[in-house]
Amino acid sequence: MVSVGIVGGTGYTGVELLRLIAAHPQAELAVITSRGNAGTPVADLFPNLRGILDTVFTAPDPQRLAECDVVFFATPNGTAMKMVPELLEQGTRVIDLGADFRLKDLDLWSRWYGMEHACPELAADAVYGLPELNRAALREARLVANPGCYPTCVLLALGPLIADGLIDTSHVVVDAVSGVSGAGRTPKQHTLLCEANESFSAYGASGHRHHPEIEQGMRLYGADVPGLTFVPHLVPMTRGMHASSYLRLRDAGSDVQAVFDRHYAEEPFVDVMPRGAHPETRSVRGSNWCRIATHAGGPSDTVVVLSVIDNLVKGASGQAVQNMNLMFGLDERAGLDAVAVLP
Amino acid sequence: MVSVGIVGGTGYTGVELLRLIAAHPQAELAVITSRGNAGTPVADLFPNLRGILDTVFTAPDPQRLAECDVVFFATPNGTAMKMVPELLEQGTRVIDLGADFRLKDLDLWSRWYGMEHACPELAADAVYGLPELNRAALREARLVANPGCYPTCVLLALGPLIADGLIDTSHVVVDAVSGVSGAGRTPKQHTLLCEANESFSAYGASGHRHHPEIEQGMRLYGADVPGLTFVPHLVPMTRGMHASSYLRLRDAGSDVQAVFDRHYAEEPFVDVMPRGAHPETRSVRGSNWCRIATHAGGPSDTVVVLSVIDNLVKGASGQAVQNMNLMFGLDERAGLDAVAVLP
Amino acid sequence: MVSVGIVGGTGYTGVELLRLIAAHPQAELAVITSRGNAGTPVADLFPNLRGILDTVFTAPDPQRLAECDVVFFATPNGTAMKMVPELLEQGTRVIDLGADFRLKDLDLWSRWYGMEHACPELAADAVYGLPELNRAALREARLVANPGCYPTCVLLALGPLIADGLIDTSHVVVDAVSGVSGAGRTPKQHTLLCEANESFSAYGASGHRHHPEIEQGMRLYGADVPGLTFVPHLVPMTRGMHASSYLRLRDAGSDVQAVFDRHYAEEPFVDVMPRGAHPETRSVRGSNWCRIATHAGGPSDTVVVLSVIDNLVKGASGQAVQNMNLMFGLDERAGLDAVAVLP
Amino acid sequence: MVSVGIVGGTGYTGVELLRLIAAHPQAELAVITSRGNAGTPVADLFPNLRGILDTVFTAPDPQRLAECDVVFFATPNGTAMKMVPELLEQGTRVIDLGADFRLKDLDLWSRWYGMEHACPELAADAVYGLPELNRAALREARLVANPGCYPTCVLLALGPLIADGLIDTSHVVVDAVSGVSGAGRTPKQHTLLCEANESFSAYGASGHRHHPEIEQGMRLYGADVPGLTFVPHLVPMTRGMHASSYLRLRDAGSDVQAVFDRHYAEEPFVDVMPRGAHPETRSVRGSNWCRIATHAGGPSDTVVVLSVIDNLVKGASGQAVQNMNLMFGLDERAGLDAVAVLP
Repeated sequence: MVSVGIVGGTGYTGVELLRLIAAHPQAELAVITSRGNAGTPVADLFPNLRGILDTVFTAPDPQRLAECDVVFFATPNGTAMKMVPELLEQGTRVIDLGADFRLKDLDLWSRWYGMEHACPELAADAVYGLPELNRAALREARLVANPGCYPTCVLLALGPLIADGLIDTSHVVVDAVSGVSGAGRTPKQHTLLCEANESFSAYGASGHRHHPEIEQGMRLYGADVPGLTFVPHLVPMTRGMHASSYLRLRDAGSDVQAVFDRHYAEEPFVDVMPRGAHPETRSVRGSNWCRIATHAGGPSDTVVVLSVIDNLVKGASGQAVQNMNLMFGLDERAGLDAVAVLP
Repeated sequence: MVSVGIVGGTGYTGVELLRLIAAHPQAELAVITSRGNAGTPVADLFPNLRGILDTVFTAPDPQRLAECDVVFFATPNGTAMKMVPELLEQGTRVIDLGADFRLKDLDLWSRWYGMEHACPELAADAVYGLPELNRAALREARLVANPGCYPTCVLLALGPLIADGLIDTSHVVVDAVSGVSGAGRTPKQHTLLCEANESFSAYGASGHRHHPEIEQGMRLYGADVPGLTFVPHLVPMTRGMHASSYLRLRDAGSDVQAVFDRHYAEEPFVDVMPRGAHPETRSVRGSNWCRIATHAGGPSDTVVVLSVIDNLVKGASGQAVQNMNLMFGLDERAGLDAVAVLP
Repeated sequence: MVSVGIVGGTGYTGVELLRLIAAHPQAELAVITSRGNAGTPVADLFPNLRGILDTVFTAPDPQRLAECDVVFFATPNGTAMKMVPELLEQGTRVIDLGADFRLKDLDLWSRWYGMEHACPELAADAVYGLPELNRAALREARLVANPGCYPTCVLLALGPLIADGLIDTSHVVVDAVSGVSGAGRTPKQHTLLCEANESFSAYGASGHRHHPEIEQGMRLYGADVPGLTFVPHLVPMTRGMHASSYLRLRDAGSDVQAVFDRHYAEEPFVDVMPRGAHPETRSVRGSNWCRIATHAGGPSDTVVVLSVIDNLVKGASGQAVQNMNLMFGLDERAGLDAVAVLP
Repeated sequence: MVSVGIVGGTGYTGVELLRLIAAHPQAELAVITSRGNAGTPVADLFPNLRGILDTVFTAPDPQRLAECDVVFFATPNGTAMKMVPELLEQGTRVIDLGADFRLKDLDLWSRWYGMEHACPELAADAVYGLPELNRAALREARLVANPGCYPTCVLLALGPLIADGLIDTSHVVVDAVSGVSGAGRTPKQHTLLCEANESFSAYGASGHRHHPEIEQGMRLYGADVPGLTFVPHLVPMTRGMHASSYLRLRDAGSDVQAVFDRHYAEEPFVDVMPRGAHPETRSVRGSNWCRIATHAGGPSDTVVVLSVIDNLVKGASGQAVQNMNLMFGLDERAGLDAVAVLP
């Protein structure tokens, strides 16, 4: 059994990790910390866990965390980088669900996250945790930077076309939407039901933290000088993420569908749908799947790729568990076989 | 492995059965029938099953169904009673998720369901599938009448107090609400998103089919002449059921909480919450749990019992699987350990 | 033109007042105050008012407020009672949308609101602003206590039956639900979309501030010693309130429908629906109407009354404008003729 | 008073027309027809109109319709074109909310709508009812083709930039979303609450009827050979439409904001928001406004224009009333001054 620690499990990625770990046949929760909720049973915060998990939040204790095989950080940006060096030194592996280790360019990181990086050398070593891109490296990783939700959803859609050199990467347009859970559990006015419900709007249209992360990922797939226009939008629902990517083909006759079919033939969590399908976010709700479909319809040199994930699963905690499975030599699907709850 | 057949799996209880059977360690789907969708892969109707289930709907074939160990009917009322006799004769066991075998009083049944009963003798034999009430009989049952969603949610709240003789059963008030999935998947105007969304109303306030079923259940718990006022309401959400039961105590000093604690101490799927708690439907979404809490607050001889279930799980397909587990001597929890998806 | 001041217009009752006053043919906004948003255009907080209202929030200035004909308080409980005496002295009339002047029993008030009352003598003078109960007094009122949303919705349903002596007032059961806007615009965790969406639960089932206010109202209608069980619930929608009242008739043969038809024959904002109807909250969304319907269905001495309002209109700002109309001798319907937005 | 007839008022654009006409100071409803609901009071279908409108649906009667000053068709495509010639002959003016007269290229029309056009000569005469584009012609129009919802929302965003020659019109990307009411009131499975709720997906990504209408509009604004990629999506909410338009500037230094400010300076229903704003659909819910904002953020020659409308108001019935106002020389704002209901 893999012994698991979770730091900061009081948000939505935290409760999702708990749900997944509780169902995992080869991992068990050893410790979960929360400064503000030390002493509180986990099930008092998350009533879905009543009768299932009787763990109690504890104050963060580096020694107790270091006794775990792996520690997940489900913390605000800037927290993990302060605690990770000590854990790694003691041989504990780390998966950070926050953004501390996602960008290799630390100047860029500082600009977007508004602070100095606490351990630049580890940032260089961290493996970007997109299994479809980095599976081999993840098997050996000691520190994994779990990707952002938008980058996951977008890179799985763009990657094969970039890798095969089919698209003009200088003008990529990505229009994406997220359910409100992406904004977290801390009370803010704009995520109140009465503000977000029955409305739709863009946000961060002039700049969003996931913009540089997507461009970095595009480079990993082979784009030299990626030019990305990325506009995220808020959808009045809890979970789910959808990206519509608008791409110019270098050769109007390219068989885009075949590229996806080939790239993802062996992937356990990527479903390439038939040409012309419209993936629904609910078809992946609560599950670790990404579904992808392609469309033509505009000018002949244009292709549209649609992709969906559950932002809290494949976009966060599920992908983190997938990474853990790779790091510990387990079946990559272990603990991740839940079927999406529909309707 | 228990070999499972499903008749009529194109509605919401059908897809929920599929989700649960797909995850069940000791049951496997042998055949699923749908007259209208014969030849269609199940995953074409329910995209959450893509990559998980490659079964194809077939036309109903009595012989193939009879080869199953158990057949679930997820059909409109009046369908099961025509096919069940032949299946039972061949030794196949049956769980009817419809209403054909729920009421023992067939005159009452005919009045509410508007047809003659096709096999009155089987109606008398059928076991009412509420495990918390009928566990012993269910272990031996050949034909199970899976309870309605409202009766399940309400009887689990009323049962212990009736059984212990604590309440006046001549004037019981139950105010209950259901998510829209209870109305099924057949297109009707009042269940369109634009009609049901952002609105709340009662329905069937002057009479609902679950009224006689609840009264029958109250009698099973020991009420002589139950007098029930029952008003169901439609909530703008997909899943979830909540009942608020308003009861008059025979003795104002009764310790209601203790009664629930004792009655449900060993139940695998009933969670008695601390006094004064407010169970949320989301805390059981996608799971087979029922959560219950009690309140005082009005006149001293009054008690309020709050109960929640997922109408498609404990209120339908999950309870059906729980019944199957009992009928086949499996662990009652098998295939039903999924944690509610929250948020 | 009636010159209107609004204190504390940054919440949901505030923006609703602005919407209604903007459309009122005989009233105009003179000043709107907000300590925290002084200097901010109203339309920056409430984008629906862009192009319609170019007023700017100002810091509260007693002198400027006193120049208004009427001042509405849309403030947290405890604020109005400190400012009202000075305004009344200068001849400005006041409508308090908060709870400061709702209860005549100030001990009870202190117990529920957790503070001493700042002007007990005014609390005694304040007119309870339910026009259907107090129309004559409202025409002369200088200080109006605008009723709570639940008391409005419930008292309009109970009042006629109490007044005519038809029901047993010692055991009245009211099961009511509210859209989330009733909880206000201040960020709190339980009103986040991801917490409240797709879920249903009771709250305050063992005690709610509107309980004593409803009992006080029952006395005003003639109940001697009202015994009320009142359980409010939160519905996953923005606006709307529904009450299901469960009542025991003194005489099982009473013609309840006729009582309502007669009582409300002349009311401009109460719609008595045909016997057996199910009022929907969306049918009053954004409007000042209350719709009511009656049902039999349980034991013969039982009647169920269903009532709906928009909690922010008839349950708050609309009723406040209706009261203003009465106080200033205007047409009671002025500014309140908007049709509910459906769907 | 303008005497108004409505043909086919049982859908969502119908009830919205009724709401608007009921509030219009210079128009009154003379007749509303529905073959299927003849004899039914309008308020029985639309309970928001109880107490406001006591009109009864009648069977379509050409003579009675011809007595109206103007007839609105809120009918399925293909209905209006059969009745319009006779009405025009008798001097009644017509506004068609359907698609019968929207496209000038009737071959294209037949291809998308799957039928022969019944009166080609009138199709040529019809004025495309986008006031911001065609105000002068609308004042003289006898037959108005009310634009589709998507074309309205998109053309108001693209028009000024095309007219001023700022953008490359050969590769325009428009990603748009609509609330579910756009799919109408006829029961269909995919618009059930349980199917559409808590999910997001594209539809018609390989081709949608509004695609040729938008391209036709682009030509009207001056684009020679428009190349459009247009993907509509369904949002889990009732009302509201949002378009994100991704455009390449001919000159990266163009002052896009100034273009919008100038073009729409005098428009009564177009709100150009400050640079970098994010218009919310709820800010126009129930109102006739379109709000627009511009963003830079991707490659330097890229601009993003965000636009929102209420699909049932500015995208349908409100724009129809605006057109009526123009045709009859009324104040263009008459009957359209309702403030959006928020929250």
